[in-house]
Amino acid sequence: MSKQLSQKGIIIVVSGFSGAGKGTVMKALTAKYDKYALSVSATTRNPRPGEENGREYFFVSNEEFEKLIKENGLIEHAGYVDHYYGTPRKFVEDQLDAGKDVILEIEIQGALQIKEQYPEAVLLFIMPPSAMELKKRLTGRGTETEEVIAQRLKRAKEESVGIEKYDYIVVNDDLDECVEQVHDIISAAHMAPSRNLDFINTIRNELNEL
Amino acid sequence: MSKQLSQKGIIIVVSGFSGAGKGTVMKALTAKYDKYALSVSATTRNPRPGEENGREYFFVSNEEFEKLIKENGLIEHAGYVDHYYGTPRKFVEDQLDAGKDVILEIEIQGALQIKEQYPEAVLLFIMPPSAMELKKRLTGRGTETEEVIAQRLKRAKEESVGIEKYDYIVVNDDLDECVEQVHDIISAAHMAPSRNLDFINTIRNELNEL
Repeated sequence: MSKQLSQKGIIIVVSGFSGAGKGTVMKALTAKYDKYALSVSATTRNPRPGEENGREYFFVSNEEFEKLIKENGLIEHAGYVDHYYGTPRKFVEDQLDAGKDVILEIEIQGALQIKEQYPEAVLLFIMPPSAMELKKRLTGRGTETEEVIAQRLKRAKEESVGIEKYDYIVVNDDLDECVEQVHDIISAAHMAPSRNLDFINTIRNELNEL
Repeated sequence: MSKQLSQKGIIIVVSGFSGAGKGTVMKALTAKYDKYALSVSATTRNPRPGEENGREYFFVSNEEFEKLIKENGLIEHAGYVDHYYGTPRKFVEDQLDAGKDVILEIEIQGALQIKEQYPEAVLLFIMPPSAMELKKRLTGRGTETEEVIAQRLKRAKEESVGIEKYDYIVVNDDLDECVEQVHDIISAAHMAPSRNLDFINTIRNELNEL
């Protein structure tokens, strides 16, 4: 009797300063590998040009969002720059049950809420190669006012305090390399003994029967 | 100012049942990637056919081994099937200082001694795909008596109790795949925040100066 390692899904929480490119990294990762499902958050902020309801986010009203909270329909939620963001529970649990690794792109408050409910979740923080590069990327987007950029940089300073609470940091300098590093981290996470107790016990029982 | 993640060396401890193929995996890994240095253990057991002093092991007498222990020249040592095995300290520390990841192929007693002295060491356990496959490999070697094979299988049963103390398990079914999995695990370990505090602090300071 032979058996392979468990393919049970893992929750991967990805955070990073606004402008670090985490959205781009996650899109490239999920496009390259079928085994990942990208969770779609609900938010009360307005869509940016090109964003589509149900693809980048579920764009909902404040009332709708508060109803979701009340009905325990979110596994985490947080406020960020005057808007709510949250992760619908049903999608995440359906995907995990189907054996997919579910990637949640959320910020630090939400990440820590997830780690509390799902201690085996893997927390990644995507870093820019430097702060100057972060500012350059935020400015280069051309979609934000100077005021919003300043607000995002201020928020980055605040968020940088919590980086040590993450399991891994990944530098987004070269996109392909960053995608591979995230993939390596998730692959490694599947090999933790705690995720493979069935396999370990099978080998033990087989050894005892030899 | 931009900065990459720390390239400081990591200690990787690799254990596995005799016959799981850890030696083969480690040889293939170090042949493929320059960044790894394979530690050469000292042992009091006799060389097997084809083994060379200073390559597979430093083959030493009981007296020489006990002198090494006394002079604190070993970072771990243990007895296994009537012989001593130990890891010379100097080689490991020289390689870490040179930025290499040092791979120690040792059994569980030694692995736990290492984790105590170097809490950031990464502990891997190489598994056979099944117990029958393990027995097949041990028998197929053709270098051991039936008695020694039985002794190794008994030892495997004992060692299997400690698997959960390892950070990762890797199944050696396909050699190339196993090598890549070990490489992924080590790559991921380099991305822990605790190994990259300089980089994190640099980004924080840069953000504060923007």
